[in-house]
Order: sequence, then structure tokens, then C-alpha cells
Amino acid sequence: MKQERAERTRAAVVLAASEEFKERGFAGASVSRIADRAGVTLGAVYFHFPSKNELARDIVSRQPDFVVPPHPSHGLQRVVDVTLTWAYQLLDDPVLQAGARLVWEQERFMEPERNSHDQWAGLLLPELRAARRLRELRTGTDVEAVARLVVNACTGAQMHSYVEARHRDLPQRVEEIWRCLLPAVAVPSAARRIELGAGRGRPAP
Amino acid sequence: MKQERAERTRAAVVLAASEEFKERGFAGASVSRIADRAGVTLGAVYFHFPSKNELARDIVSRQPDFVVPPHPSHGLQRVVDVTLTWAYQLLDDPVLQAGARLVWEQERFMEPERNSHDQWAGLLLPELRAARRLRELRTGTDVEAVARLVVNACTGAQMHSYVEARHRDLPQRVEEIWRCLLPAVAVPSAARRIELGAGRGRPAP
Repeated sequence: MKQERAERTRAAVVLAASEEFKERGFAGASVSRIADRAGVTLGAVYFHFPSKNELARDIVSRQPDFVVPPHPSHGLQRVVDVTLTWAYQLLDDPVLQAGARLVWEQERFMEPERNSHDQWAGLLLPELRAARRLRELRTGTDVEAVARLVVNACTGAQMHSYVEARHRDLPQRVEEIWRCLLPAVAVPSAARRIELGAGRGRPAP
Repeated sequence: MKQERAERTRAAVVLAASEEFKERGFAGASVSRIADRAGVTLGAVYFHFPSKNELARDIVSRQPDFVVPPHPSHGLQRVVDVTLTWAYQLLDDPVLQAGARLVWEQERFMEPERNSHDQWAGLLLPELRAARRLRELRTGTDVEAVARLVVNACTGAQMHSYVEARHRDLPQRVEEIWRCLLPAVAVPSAARRIELGAGRGRPAP
């Protein structure tokens, strides 16, 4: 019972912190405002997270856990699905929105060797290796370079989509990235099989 | 004479503002500190730039003017050269460093329809169209999508290179982007001709 209550409080704090970070960024966020938003005491926040740094680090480092594609898939389709799911979820998930906002302040609270770029690239890499085993990739494709390129392109798309449209067109931008990239990465038969549009990655209503 | 002095002052203000923005970002920058750094009066700053917004807008919107590849080139090689030149110059040019830092705060001072992403994509587009006329591109390549992808990937690479290495490895990251991307975009004969490494874009010593 006690454990359950502690977990509920922790989740409420993470959600409140996400909204605070999303609106004010890391530098502008205040832990006491987070406590107010979560409806808990300042002591309760600090019980779970010793500092604002810890809170931000938790939210950024757990981003990939929140992105679970609605369709089963593997290999190259899985890589595509993860990026599209992230793009759709970013439209209304405060934890992902906080992650997107915090990415450019992460030097304040993340160790450089555990940054969000490496996290995401590390998540995509096993699926790209699976794609290679499945003979979906062109000969000589450097899977680590492709993982980094996908993360870079999605990061840039996220930033620019935010500036222009508050992320509303992000799924379309990510689809466009894949339409350009697939011919570089996939053998023609695999490129033809990959599903992109029509709400791939969009959660079922 | 008077005109010349005014131009020198303006250039000193832009340089001082670049250093201030680079270190403190848009929100943290102060116009009076910029005046101090430039060794001019606050009135002199405001004579050239009515507000901090105007200063930031000037620096961001003129970024492409500062990036002039050291080699003559055209078509796809020009697109590559512009991105590599930008990557090398970012290592020690405060105006470009300020531009990189301001990109994620631009909603505070740029109109959304005149954002840095569109500026850069607009700069690359005519060269990509030239590449198409030169038959360097694969049939069916969407040049506008490619321009956006290149800008997105460079933006993401810039951010992550900053977090991990204070931009020191940016030229290598941009080279890597092109090694992945060329097979998607260029016909094989053109892809083979494109020069990438060995300081393409690096200014002559």
C-alpha cells in the first residue's frame, strides 16, 4: 500500500515536472512550483528526487521508455516505427515535450557521455543490426552512422517543427526524412515493404 | 569618414553581441554588457539596433552570408562545401557560434515564417536544383525534402557535437552525414566525384 502510494506520488511529480520544464525550460523551472503543481509537499518531491538536476536527468534518460510503437515490428520497420511513434506522441505527451525542450539544456544536468543523442542512437542500433541480419540494408551500410543520422535529423526536425508549428507537423517531417533516407539505407525490396504513412506510429483511437 | 566609423562601430557591436549571446543565450544577454564589450556607449548600440531582438535577428538572419566556401564549386559539391565550411567555421567564429546558440531561442525574436531553418534550406535549394540540371541527382529526388533533411541533420549534429565536444568534432559529423546521404541523393558517378574529407571547407591556413 505504502509502496503504491509512493509510486503514485513519484509519477505525479514526474508529470508536474514535465509540465514545468516544458513551459519554462530547465533554468526557469522551480522545484517548489513543481511540488504545487503535483499537489505534494516540497519534502515529498525531494524524497524522490534529491535535486532539480535529478528530476531533469530522470525525465531525459527515460524518454525512450515512453515511446512504444503500437504495432509489433522488427528491423528497419521498427526503427521507422520508433521515430514515427515518438513524433506522434510528442503532440500531446508532456513527458516527451519536456524531453524535447530539455535537450538543448542537457549540459546543465546530464554527464556528456550519457547524453540524449547517444541514448536514442543506442536504442536504434540493435534494430539496425537486426535489419542487416535480415538483409534489409544495402551492402556496406554503416549502421552506427545511420543511427546517428536518424537521431540528428529527428532532433533538427523537432526543433524546426516546434519553431514553425509547435510540433504539429512533426509526424509529416519524420515521414519525409524516411522517404529521403530509405533509398540510401535499404535494398529496394526492403524499401518498398516499409510502411510509413497513414498513421504508422499513431496510437489507436 | 563618418560612414566608415559607423560601419566599424556596427561591426564591433555585432561581434560583442555574438560573444554575449554565445555565452549567455538570448534570454541571459544584456545590451549594456554588449556595449561594454564593444567599448561603445549604450546609445551607440541602440543607434544601430533598436532592441536586443533586432540584434539577435540580424545575427541569425545573416548567418548564411558568413559562410563562404574557400573552393569554387557548384551543384551537389557546393551543397556539401557549404555545410562543411559552416562546420569548420563554427569552431572559432563567434558570429556562427552565436547563431548556433540562438537557434533554439529564435521563437523569442524571429517571426516563425522567417526562421533559420527556412533560410538555410533556401540557400541550399538553388544548388540542389543546379545539381538536378547537371544530372547529379537520382531520378525522382525531391530537392526540397533533401534541403530540409540536410538542414535538420546539420542542426542535430551541431547540438549533439556541442553537448559532447563543444563542436570540436562537428566537421567529422557533417562528413559522416554526407557519407550516409550521398547514395540516397546522387547517381553513383556523381557520388564518386564528390570531395568530402581532407579539409574540404576548411579555410586555407
